[in-house]
Amino acid sequence: MVPVLKTGVAKTTASSNLAPSAKKGGFMSVKLDLGLAESFISKDELAAKRSKADDAYIKLPKMDMTGWLVPDENVLPRITKLANKIKSNSQVLISIGIGGSYLGAKAVTEAISGEGVEVVFAGNSLSSKELQRALDAALDKDFAVCVISKSGGTLEPALAFRIFRKALVEKYGEDEASNRIFAITDAKKGSLHDLAVEKGWEMLAVPDDVGGRFSVLTAAQLLTIAAKGVDIKELLAGAKKASTDKKCLENAKNYATARHLLYKKGKKIEILSSFEPSLQYLAEWWKQLFGESEGKNQQGIFPASVSFTTDLHSLGQFIQDGERDIFETVLKVEKSAAEIIIPVDDGNGDGLNYLAGKTLSFVNEMALIGTKKAHADGSVPVIEVVLPEITPFNLGYLIYFFELSCAISAILFGVSPFDQPGVEAYKNNMFELLRET
Amino acid sequence: MVPVLKTGVAKTTASSNLAPSAKKGGFMSVKLDLGLAESFISKDELAAKRSKADDAYIKLPKMDMTGWLVPDENVLPRITKLANKIKSNSQVLISIGIGGSYLGAKAVTEAISGEGVEVVFAGNSLSSKELQRALDAALDKDFAVCVISKSGGTLEPALAFRIFRKALVEKYGEDEASNRIFAITDAKKGSLHDLAVEKGWEMLAVPDDVGGRFSVLTAAQLLTIAAKGVDIKELLAGAKKASTDKKCLENAKNYATARHLLYKKGKKIEILSSFEPSLQYLAEWWKQLFGESEGKNQQGIFPASVSFTTDLHSLGQFIQDGERDIFETVLKVEKSAAEIIIPVDDGNGDGLNYLAGKTLSFVNEMALIGTKKAHADGSVPVIEVVLPEITPFNLGYLIYFFELSCAISAILFGVSPFDQPGVEAYKNNMFELLRET
Repeated sequence: MVPVLKTGVAKTTASSNLAPSAKKGGFMSVKLDLGLAESFISKDELAAKRSKADDAYIKLPKMDMTGWLVPDENVLPRITKLANKIKSNSQVLISIGIGGSYLGAKAVTEAISGEGVEVVFAGNSLSSKELQRALDAALDKDFAVCVISKSGGTLEPALAFRIFRKALVEKYGEDEASNRIFAITDAKKGSLHDLAVEKGWEMLAVPDDVGGRFSVLTAAQLLTIAAKGVDIKELLAGAKKASTDKKCLENAKNYATARHLLYKKGKKIEILSSFEPSLQYLAEWWKQLFGESEGKNQQGIFPASVSFTTDLHSLGQFIQDGERDIFETVLKVEKSAAEIIIPVDDGNGDGLNYLAGKTLSFVNEMALIGTKKAHADGSVPVIEVVLPEITPFNLGYLIYFFELSCAISAILFGVSPFDQPGVEAYKNNMFELLRET
Repeated sequence: MVPVLKTGVAKTTASSNLAPSAKKGGFMSVKLDLGLAESFISKDELAAKRSKADDAYIKLPKMDMTGWLVPDENVLPRITKLANKIKSNSQVLISIGIGGSYLGAKAVTEAISGEGVEVVFAGNSLSSKELQRALDAALDKDFAVCVISKSGGTLEPALAFRIFRKALVEKYGEDEASNRIFAITDAKKGSLHDLAVEKGWEMLAVPDDVGGRFSVLTAAQLLTIAAKGVDIKELLAGAKKASTDKKCLENAKNYATARHLLYKKGKKIEILSSFEPSLQYLAEWWKQLFGESEGKNQQGIFPASVSFTTDLHSLGQFIQDGERDIFETVLKVEKSAAEIIIPVDDGNGDGLNYLAGKTLSFVNEMALIGTKKAHADGSVPVIEVVLPEITPFNLGYLIYFFELSCAISAILFGVSPFDQPGVEAYKNNMFELLRET
């Protein structure tokens, strides 16, 4: 073993002043900082648009598909029981779903390490190569399958499920296969619902009043997350806290207001950046949430994402000095899950001994501060969303914050936050082609 | 085992007419189809701008940093020898590099499966969590380290290398550690060069006349790719073919011309889409190539990417019906590496027996055709780049095609394709903060 390389608590970090949020009991909410965007927006504009955000929020509870506004903790005992069943008989869970039935669970399980089963996602593309990879990861192990599809009719998960169900039956026989299938679908109707009832599979209901991209904290995604070993009770507790926290509401309204004004001033692309690569799929989830909610009627902010410092060495040039139609939202994590202390090198051949004894996270934080300033100096408005630490609680809070911001934002754009009519266009073409064959 | 699920050749696929390219000897070049973008551009405009592209190409060989125009196969024997050395004594290669010293090798090794060592990339962020993951993947195994840095001074790889070098020395002792380090750097100068000479490490020279983002087919990236087991001789043969193929040049000029005209018409975002998730990092490489080359002087096309059909269920709504400032370049693969035949299901509970006997790739192709049409109908110009099959040869060809297109395109924008002055801004801020501590 190499002691200096082991995860440990650093002696001095720039974040050390911030810490209590991480401890149980101590709570520090997700923060919003508009300081580096304010020079692009006048105070009067902010105040005027902000009152529209207040109006939007008042409308929200009266709209359909807002079940996510009140996180439902009642589902936890049964989901926990089913997750324990999976953990007891499987090494791998194949989680079949696409879009909102995939991205949330992927985001949470990438961001947080758990001690549960290995989760392999499938049914989120039509690539043979990807499905073969998922099969290869499962067939030689004990595995279970959860399939998430409100209607049962979405093609990608339906095809993947057909193939994995066959694999289960061939490996375990019909009875034991049925014991290893978990159907997460409509409570009353649809092809998957009917099949699950006929076969006697375990079932969980996708709520009627929550759309796919708002469903990460519901039964739709929580079984996958729990099977991976992430604490779903804490995740929902964070969302619950956010739902009653005035600061969260205030921040959500301000975030929605600022980004809307920036869009009106020609900033047509929002780049969500993070200095923690494990948040890459949280950004993918965020892109669906905002892109699918707002991108209607030939308008909307194009959601993009970058992982820094990696992408400072690829898209950094463009952000600094390319077309000035972008703004940036930095997702900052104050306290890293791991700490690596930079060692002394006797020869100092690389000239980096001035950093010896510092943590890598400290250097990362200086990169973040330097980047924000550079981008703002380059006429990129920068919004900062600050997460005290990546924990299930904080992630639940953050997810709720983004969902609330997004719903308010879509209403500011004058579109429904909860439909996605444009998604049908390619499907109609595809099914026509498939039926012709 | 589950026979029907095993990789095999499908009986009938929509792609079966296309095949000879895949066979050794048979060659089919990468194709370009502008059919679904032409209605957005007049023939006169195309012809006028195309002559500017001809001019740009004439300028190119006279410019500095164009060594990549003639792929250099002379490096292959030594790289192959070093890769064999790694394969003979290591299970894992830690490949340390960032930007152009990372993305190309990541792209190729994700796209093509090899039979070599496991490659773990490190030094491409400042995240403790990510570096800890890389350490965890290596420390209990036999491993080697290659470090790629022209100057040796780039902070991310230099810090990661310092930490991994210490780990090597602690595990193997100084002498054997030196036997497991491969320094890929400037041929004559720099801190990494000097350290490598002093310690007697194996060295490879990053060419002087090729910049980072154009360096994937040089010594900078080929050792990593070869260690993973990808056939680098074929990769370079593909690039070599492209460099002498008039069709490649013609397509590159036409691609550069079309995208430039679309930009001038307000299409400020190019989305590179693919229906093969293993090409996700090729898209990341492409984003650096074009973004860093063109994104200067407050202009340039913003490069984004999506992985379909996955992202049809997230960004699909926006592409179909959001702000109309986007165009799409579809990277189509005609023949899949794996084939899965959709099985019959006796109950047909999901109603999909009409697809039984078809391959998943066939369905994927119908999705691609349906998507192109839907997006074009939604006023998104669609360009198609067609790859016969993902092979090292074709990938080498494609990489060369994109590099050539990009260089021509940047010249059309009136900027140098080969510098990146904006990248210094955040670095200057960061180093100032680090030195203050």
